[in-house]
Amino acid sequence: MAQIKSEIIAVGTELLLGQIANTNAQWLSQQLAAYGINVYNHAVVGDNLNRVQDTFRQAQNRSDIIIVTGGLGPTDDDLTREAFQGLSGQEIIEHPESMEKIKQFFDRNNYSMTPNNRKQARVFKGAKVLLNNAGMAPGMMATHQNKTWIFLPGVPREMKQLSLDYVFPYLQKMIGNKEVIKSIVLKFIGIGESRLEHDLHDLIQAQSNPTIAPLAQNDGVVIRLTAKESSQMLVNQILEETKEKVLEQVGEYFYGVDDQTIEEQIISLLIAQNKQIAAAESLTGGMFMSRLISVEGASEACAGGIVCYDTDVKKEVLGISEKTIESHGTVSEECALEMAVNARKKLNSNIGISFTGVAGPGKSEEHPAGTVFIAISDDTGQDIVRQFNFNGSRNSVRRRTALKGLELLFKYLK
Amino acid sequence: MAQIKSEIIAVGTELLLGQIANTNAQWLSQQLAAYGINVYNHAVVGDNLNRVQDTFRQAQNRSDIIIVTGGLGPTDDDLTREAFQGLSGQEIIEHPESMEKIKQFFDRNNYSMTPNNRKQARVFKGAKVLLNNAGMAPGMMATHQNKTWIFLPGVPREMKQLSLDYVFPYLQKMIGNKEVIKSIVLKFIGIGESRLEHDLHDLIQAQSNPTIAPLAQNDGVVIRLTAKESSQMLVNQILEETKEKVLEQVGEYFYGVDDQTIEEQIISLLIAQNKQIAAAESLTGGMFMSRLISVEGASEACAGGIVCYDTDVKKEVLGISEKTIESHGTVSEECALEMAVNARKKLNSNIGISFTGVAGPGKSEEHPAGTVFIAISDDTGQDIVRQFNFNGSRNSVRRRTALKGLELLFKYLK
Repeated sequence: MAQIKSEIIAVGTELLLGQIANTNAQWLSQQLAAYGINVYNHAVVGDNLNRVQDTFRQAQNRSDIIIVTGGLGPTDDDLTREAFQGLSGQEIIEHPESMEKIKQFFDRNNYSMTPNNRKQARVFKGAKVLLNNAGMAPGMMATHQNKTWIFLPGVPREMKQLSLDYVFPYLQKMIGNKEVIKSIVLKFIGIGESRLEHDLHDLIQAQSNPTIAPLAQNDGVVIRLTAKESSQMLVNQILEETKEKVLEQVGEYFYGVDDQTIEEQIISLLIAQNKQIAAAESLTGGMFMSRLISVEGASEACAGGIVCYDTDVKKEVLGISEKTIESHGTVSEECALEMAVNARKKLNSNIGISFTGVAGPGKSEEHPAGTVFIAISDDTGQDIVRQFNFNGSRNSVRRRTALKGLELLFKYLK
Repeated sequence: MAQIKSEIIAVGTELLLGQIANTNAQWLSQQLAAYGINVYNHAVVGDNLNRVQDTFRQAQNRSDIIIVTGGLGPTDDDLTREAFQGLSGQEIIEHPESMEKIKQFFDRNNYSMTPNNRKQARVFKGAKVLLNNAGMAPGMMATHQNKTWIFLPGVPREMKQLSLDYVFPYLQKMIGNKEVIKSIVLKFIGIGESRLEHDLHDLIQAQSNPTIAPLAQNDGVVIRLTAKESSQMLVNQILEETKEKVLEQVGEYFYGVDDQTIEEQIISLLIAQNKQIAAAESLTGGMFMSRLISVEGASEACAGGIVCYDTDVKKEVLGISEKTIESHGTVSEECALEMAVNARKKLNSNIGISFTGVAGPGKSEEHPAGTVFIAISDDTGQDIVRQFNFNGSRNSVRRRTALKGLELLFKYLK
């Protein structure tokens, strides 16, 4: 079959009021991508017959497979059946098996069935009915003028169950190609999206299988490689080859694949090197160590830290010398370094890392907001101190500082 | 103006691949609902010029206000500008102020600017440019054949900032009916959504102006009151009256309105009472103090803390007695209390707060994951220790612990 176009339509005013996000479309899209089915559009429309019909008509014109979620329930504003009938003229009949299930549900729970619940058992004559084991309304697969229409309940649990049980196996058979599709995500820190894309420009342009797609995320940038091949072995092979080509260009910023986090990678490196870390945190206030401790098993590698937000705590708990603070201030290379050294020693660790600076919004010690020093000290005598000038709000500066600390620590450990 | 129809279009293949959910559409829909603007459609389209143009053409035909998120970035597949130019014929020019911001960003960070970054400063001639303080690409508001087009970056943080700073005030003025619509958000901690809804059931049923809408959020529950009246004075009056009625029922859980955070309220109370706080954090790893320090001016009230994840750090840095740990373990009332007392004394503060427990996923010291002790100790001799059993993943337990600490501290200070 030629390039198949699919789209996902969600029916429900609650989505247009922002009461929920359209996570059904996200999940279905992820799954369809894995089957090599291209999703070209998502649409959301409210519980209004004319507007649902307009949306269905448009889908009939532009897509081959149309997946509709929602609007199959018992209430008056569940209009998906009526809208598709308006488009296709297909007759609606009661599905005895589904009706029996609904009755049983009410009997079992000693509820009296209200008449509108009957509505949920109504299906298109000629449609394949998808029995719903997670809820009441069945799903349906119908055909109209060579287009495949799939109707699923809007409740995510029911939608997923019916998709996995019936829809994906059916679609896989329908598209009937032998292709295996696989994606991997390569994760980078310390490089921006535009810089990454610039460095990889020729590769991205030259490459169509796998495709190479950069995407900015909270903690850095990721690249998604998506390959299609005739076998699992070939798909893995070309993904691996392209990964190598990407890393030749920008490998110094690479930290992991797929679900790996920078914190996990750091904890793994620390454990592998049998090292413990301690932190001295001023402006980050504990955020850095909290991120490391988010990782399962962090106790092997994280001693803890001292949150020395107050200057007196820097002196009295962390033991920063009066002289350092008087000569250089707390926002200085010298103070940062002493903080890292003292955290390491006080907490009896191999590595100390420190964060001092001005979160803002105002100045401090004559330094503008965003001025930050980060230091790393280890028990072999190696010291690193770096200055940064971050933009943004108080908490943006604090987050960037903690993230930069993770980046520096990762590079130091690698 | 008659019934205004708005729609929200998201541009980005990452949405069609299911890599992210369209939370931008959800957030915008929520906000627009509060302004009384009806959202009739959401659409998502990939980074393909023809398809983006088709989607824009359809929106021009059916909607009055079209909000587009995404596709304004630096890369070749950011096509929103080109697509709208194709529809409207509007000229694209470079916006000097935005260009200057982009240059400054690169200079300040010692990055070299790649040519594709220039693209982000390009705007429609005649559009109102919305300066982006959270990122690089500015937003725009343009008009085409009597329809209002609003272009926003796809990064949620930037999208929200520009919406709040420019878009909503503009739309409010534009809809220009005589009614004044105003919302206030009442914020609660320590009570669930269903309980709050139960307690307020009669009030919610009886009340249509203002409407009373409970909504669960990360840090507790909020109630949004939305009122329409013929004047600012009347709208304020009925909001105030309803607020009082709500607080008569559930006032003990109330902590603030609108953008006020529980952290801000705590810092204000500490400053008003001229008190300093110190924390001893085991499983939270610094998360609690980091949340307090997120507040501007926290330095007046937060000394800092000791992150004593490792038992040795509990003993050697925080000074927890060998005896306490041997007799009761680190996950105990006794240890929690001693941690709070010692944090207070070591950091020379008025209040000490401590967190110890099992983040999981495994057991520790025979306690199941989710077992948590929180203690508060003050220099007047008042001590509080509480045990909790939280559900969920490691990081869910850690977050709930820090949040519960904020709740307890707020109640203690109130």
